Amino acid sequence: MKSPVPPATVQRLPLYLRALDDLPQGRTSLSSTDLAEHLGLNPAKVRKDLSQLGSYGVRGVGYDVEHLRFQIRLELGMDKLWRVVIVGAGNLGSALANYGGLGVRGFEFVGMFDNSSEKIGSQVGSLPVEPMDQLPGAVAERGATIGIVTVPAGAAQEVAEALAKAGIKSILNFAPTVLKVPEGVHVRRVDLSTELQVLSFYLSRQ
Amino acid sequence: MKSPVPPATVQRLPLYLRALDDLPQGRTSLSSTDLAEHLGLNPAKVRKDLSQLGSYGVRGVGYDVEHLRFQIRLELGMDKLWRVVIVGAGNLGSALANYGGLGVRGFEFVGMFDNSSEKIGSQVGSLPVEPMDQLPGAVAERGATIGIVTVPAGAAQEVAEALAKAGIKSILNFAPTVLKVPEGVHVRRVDLSTELQVLSFYLSRQ
Repeated sequence: MKSPVPPATVQRLPLYLRALDDLPQGRTSLSSTDLAEHLGLNPAKVRKDLSQLGSYGVRGVGYDVEHLRFQIRLELGMDKLWRVVIVGAGNLGSALANYGGLGVRGFEFVGMFDNSSEKIGSQVGSLPVEPMDQLPGAVAERGATIGIVTVPAGAAQEVAEALAKAGIKSILNFAPTVLKVPEGVHVRRVDLSTELQVLSFYLSRQ
Repeated sequence: MKSPVPPATVQRLPLYLRALDDLPQGRTSLSSTDLAEHLGLNPAKVRKDLSQLGSYGVRGVGYDVEHLRFQIRLELGMDKLWRVVIVGAGNLGSALANYGGLGVRGFEFVGMFDNSSEKIGSQVGSLPVEPMDQLPGAVAERGATIGIVTVPAGAAQEVAEALAKAGIKSILNFAPTVLKVPEGVHVRRVDLSTELQVLSFYLSRQ
């Protein structure tokens, strides 16, 4: 039995996958040094991360690109199809629904919900906006396990509770607030201001 | 002279700041253990990160909340006002422009650009959509140093080059592609699929 992959490594696996996806077509091997340089990481850290997956490069050759991609996708659970509902049909929700069409492999957007009577019934990308009271039935029927919250901060806690009650196990929260959820529900928060603050750190040092 | 703050610590500074901002009003001190628990980090790592700023808690009392907030904001360059332009007036660009109104302190959105004649002249939040050929003049006149790219992947490289040429020093890239920029320009990429992939890792282990 393998030991669990550390959270910091999990965070980097999508970056490795993206780097592999960005390689020119036909490239079959890649060294840890090249991979590290592409991502601005330390080569030793890259080798350690990938060894957690049981993946070892060959000295002077590197990693087999297809095999490494396969292992990372397997580790990330991307051999499955995850169904996603979005709550909040504003600009951000619409952007994300359309983003689905940009090729987020392994994920399918199966519902868009809002409580505004102006938005309900309108179409966002390929999704009709449905009222919140249809969320529980939709989650169950369509087998959704991931919920994305794009409502304003003041409404986010109520939405998170509705998602958890409907059986959603993972929440991606774009609202600028901390959500309290029942045990067994995993929340990740995406915050634009965090990204801007990191940029400002580097700018103020130039 | 302090040694430079390691990149991994820089990444966590906005999280600490957010945790401090999330505290109930009137709370004046906070232990590293509470801070660590709130963020799902190791208390020893929190203490080490904050010691990089020259900040040490008092045993049995913790950190002074106001002083710690001040130090983090200073370290992140948030004592300055950074001016931001957005290129791409689609749903995502619009969401971000409106997000500005949600209180991203230390940042001011000063321009929204697009090359679509349908969008030019329309209003997004408080910003009129301007044509790309006005970008260089606007960046110089309004003192913008950060550019946000929300155009489709195929257009992103061209936009990044235009931003760099206009004098932008930091780019936040939402397009699912790697940008090549001149030396001295700092790029960060925000990728929804990365966040979804990390969620899928935790889901597939439940």
